[in-house]
Amino acid sequence: MQQFLGAPRAIVDDILTGTAQLMPLLQSTPESGVRIVLRAQRDPAQVAVLSGGGSGHEPSHAGFVGKGMLSGAIAGELFASPGVEAVLAAIRACADAPGVLLVIKNYTGDRLNFGLAAERARAEGIDVATVLVADDIALPEAKQPRGLAGTVLVHKFVGDLAAQGLPLAEIAQRGQAFADRLLSLGMALSSCTVPGQTQGKRSPELGLGIHNEPGARKVDPQGVEDALELVLAPLLDAADAKYGAGARLVVMLNDLGGCSTQELGTLTRGMLTRIGVERIALMPRPAALMTSMDMHGFSVTLAPADDDVLAALRTPVETLGWPGVVEPHAVKHFAPSLSRQGAESGGGRRDAARGAALGRLAEVLIQAEAELDALDARTGDGDAGSTFANGARALADALAQDRLSTGEDAALATELAALIEHSMGGSSGVLLSILFTTAATTLEHGDGWPAALAAGIARMQDYGGAREGDRTMLDALIPAIQALDGGTLADAINAARSGADGTAQMTRAGAGRSAAVPEDALRGVVDPGAEAVARAFAAYAG
Amino acid sequence: MQQFLGAPRAIVDDILTGTAQLMPLLQSTPESGVRIVLRAQRDPAQVAVLSGGGSGHEPSHAGFVGKGMLSGAIAGELFASPGVEAVLAAIRACADAPGVLLVIKNYTGDRLNFGLAAERARAEGIDVATVLVADDIALPEAKQPRGLAGTVLVHKFVGDLAAQGLPLAEIAQRGQAFADRLLSLGMALSSCTVPGQTQGKRSPELGLGIHNEPGARKVDPQGVEDALELVLAPLLDAADAKYGAGARLVVMLNDLGGCSTQELGTLTRGMLTRIGVERIALMPRPAALMTSMDMHGFSVTLAPADDDVLAALRTPVETLGWPGVVEPHAVKHFAPSLSRQGAESGGGRRDAARGAALGRLAEVLIQAEAELDALDARTGDGDAGSTFANGARALADALAQDRLSTGEDAALATELAALIEHSMGGSSGVLLSILFTTAATTLEHGDGWPAALAAGIARMQDYGGAREGDRTMLDALIPAIQALDGGTLADAINAARSGADGTAQMTRAGAGRSAAVPEDALRGVVDPGAEAVARAFAAYAG
Repeated sequence: MQQFLGAPRAIVDDILTGTAQLMPLLQSTPESGVRIVLRAQRDPAQVAVLSGGGSGHEPSHAGFVGKGMLSGAIAGELFASPGVEAVLAAIRACADAPGVLLVIKNYTGDRLNFGLAAERARAEGIDVATVLVADDIALPEAKQPRGLAGTVLVHKFVGDLAAQGLPLAEIAQRGQAFADRLLSLGMALSSCTVPGQTQGKRSPELGLGIHNEPGARKVDPQGVEDALELVLAPLLDAADAKYGAGARLVVMLNDLGGCSTQELGTLTRGMLTRIGVERIALMPRPAALMTSMDMHGFSVTLAPADDDVLAALRTPVETLGWPGVVEPHAVKHFAPSLSRQGAESGGGRRDAARGAALGRLAEVLIQAEAELDALDARTGDGDAGSTFANGARALADALAQDRLSTGEDAALATELAALIEHSMGGSSGVLLSILFTTAATTLEHGDGWPAALAAGIARMQDYGGAREGDRTMLDALIPAIQALDGGTLADAINAARSGADGTAQMTRAGAGRSAAVPEDALRGVVDPGAEAVARAFAAYAG
Repeated sequence: MQQFLGAPRAIVDDILTGTAQLMPLLQSTPESGVRIVLRAQRDPAQVAVLSGGGSGHEPSHAGFVGKGMLSGAIAGELFASPGVEAVLAAIRACADAPGVLLVIKNYTGDRLNFGLAAERARAEGIDVATVLVADDIALPEAKQPRGLAGTVLVHKFVGDLAAQGLPLAEIAQRGQAFADRLLSLGMALSSCTVPGQTQGKRSPELGLGIHNEPGARKVDPQGVEDALELVLAPLLDAADAKYGAGARLVVMLNDLGGCSTQELGTLTRGMLTRIGVERIALMPRPAALMTSMDMHGFSVTLAPADDDVLAALRTPVETLGWPGVVEPHAVKHFAPSLSRQGAESGGGRRDAARGAALGRLAEVLIQAEAELDALDARTGDGDAGSTFANGARALADALAQDRLSTGEDAALATELAALIEHSMGGSSGVLLSILFTTAATTLEHGDGWPAALAAGIARMQDYGGAREGDRTMLDALIPAIQALDGGTLADAINAARSGADGTAQMTRAGAGRSAAVPEDALRGVVDPGAEAVARAFAAYAG
């Protein structure tokens, strides 16, 4: 299975039916043999706007049927124009309107089939006008430029004029004038996958249509900026010639079908930089608007930023596919409030004995680095010793530079939290920093160390997700701190040691580094985090 | 060039900056070293809602920052949690709010970094609460289910509660309760492209995360329905167990990054069919919401259709990425008004002489089939003779069955237009049908055949785009019909013959079948369409 698509013959019906199930639309009966979706409710005082063409360009065109945009859409097979009867039936369904406007992309099949349908509808007494979209600038010599993504802007423009209740002739005249000013150019890194066909992907091309035909020329862009330059340079030249040099623009970035959101974001940024945000009055949110199946490419469409165009593009609509518009602007920055990191002295009192105890703790963990790393290598990624040693070295430095408020409980806990966060790294560092941050808050409320550490451990478990018995440093920490509550430091040391040793019997790691290690590898091996905790307690006591 | 992306280190900044250029957001200064976007204007009476995580999931999360949804987002590197300082700085920037809610996806890095930031912010006196999203059902035994696309629904839900001015504790409590009810499952046809890494694409997998980690198991779906069944069956089972059997649902279809609009439409249709539209109260428009770069896959998220959830999801927001919601329903059909095709008798008078003339014309074109096909093969696709012969046979049949109003000009033109449209095929058939349709209208207005045919030819040129001298049938038709105006049928025959012969000297075909044929191949070869017209005129005259 290569794509999430049904049989080639089913694709168009699947997509249209899905659209009709999501939006307030009427779908032509399956037995009719034609594929039309219409707004379920139209204002009969408004001109009806119809469009359509081959399928494979979704959300064009059914995705633009809805209040404020198209009254209906006629869908052909993939990349093939719908027949005359289908177009005519759609026009007839709108015969109650004061006129029907057909928006036609400039391809021979569409021109002829929509054209004959228009003539036949006129012969039936329906007032029909057409707007032909030929926005492609890929082939400057072409007598018949293709209709590309600019068609979507025409849908929005004439849809809004129709919603204003303007007469058919005026909508057609203004719509054609707008269509005639549109400029589009596409490029792709590869061709699209046409269901039911097997073919190799083509290499990058500029000047693409939307039917997988080869582009105007092969290109070899060296990066995003280069790719954008290939597309934007000719477009901006054409805009200068057609709208006047430096004229303000409406810009549309269209995903031809295969761009990721990350690519679309990158292209947006690059396009805004190249054109200059100050020159862009408005753009639709970057989106897939006129696709060529899954073609990995994009197109850009330019239009002049005339007041009536801006007004028409801004009005909200009720469709599946129109993404709304935004107004690009220079980035507004703010300076985030970051913590001062590290070097300043703690402002609280000093306690020499506690400083010495912390110094012993640091020394022991520094000495244990290689041993704990080796222990970790048997059940994890071999860096537990280094992680603790990193924190321990920072602690030793802070003590040597007299930067810790060793005589002031809450301040010391806060300083240790910051020191650990910035030096240890890894999950262990963040977890221990959470422990001391929470402990500091508790100490500030007047509780003692046992309660503070217990609160810290609880919060550590909230965020870390590990429980006692999960073969982590908690298996030494939890019993040690429970022992402190009403017991002595010696009780805590014993409890930590006993807890650490007990991890060697735990053959299922519930969380942390050893969660994916098989039982046999765990049996008999002490968890290095728990071991570090046990040694730290012992060293602290001296 | 494989993707429209900058250097791996630039991607996140590109996307964030593009977002900040399109929406009313503040972006952290580049020199700050942290990546935060915030709403430029918040209501200081409302709780601030922050989310974030690794990048590569766009539009999550910066694309959901805006009125009614997130107050800000913190972005890490691709697939890597942002640091504690970044999260803390974002919280501090919202310190004026009556509380800050963090929405956290359940990954260790996010839990710990957001958790420590929350603790530090609390220590600074900021009221912070958290909602943890763990909606993945891929691994039923997992102690820590991952946070997937359901996170986006949480953003919308809590964002709406915050916009209502509710207090932090209530938003957090209701947000967590909602998050705890979410069920998500993803599948993909291949893994994603991680910039800066080279790796083969993996085969289809079910139960995917959003960091390109392998799925819960390999699968081999045999089609779209099969793929959807793999995802929906366990989800619906889980929903029955969690919400009650058959409970009404909120359903979200999320493009993991690499689905085309056609695939998303097909998946939508299949999903609605499998679940049943009547069971779905509401769904966001199918879209890329929580992606894994360009992963070619999708995920589905279910939520119970509780009234407060529906209300919160429905409110409009001002963000780049939230697609709005729709309410699926059964398709409403309409029966299109199609033309009755062909067999009935024309109701007008008969004219035996004109019938005989048309019969001669048909006979000549049937006889010329092979000759004209051969002529066409030298400059086109070799089917011009067959196309005219198809129409001629239908004409002969209609005459033999006395189905044409040969004695009534306008009716005959209408009948010929229909006959040609349904029998000839190709562009020529549509063009000639346009000619006779327009001619019929003109004849009805009381004009004679010369004026009617001239009007038809003009309209043919409007839609067809060819002009005299473009080496098409027009080069015989136009002079012949000009000759008819004031001249005799014999003049028209001569003009058509002379026009057809002249096409052999035309070495640039401006339109139609020979437009891409080199000069040398055209020189000396009469255009088969013009030749057919010349022979038809001669045969008609007898």
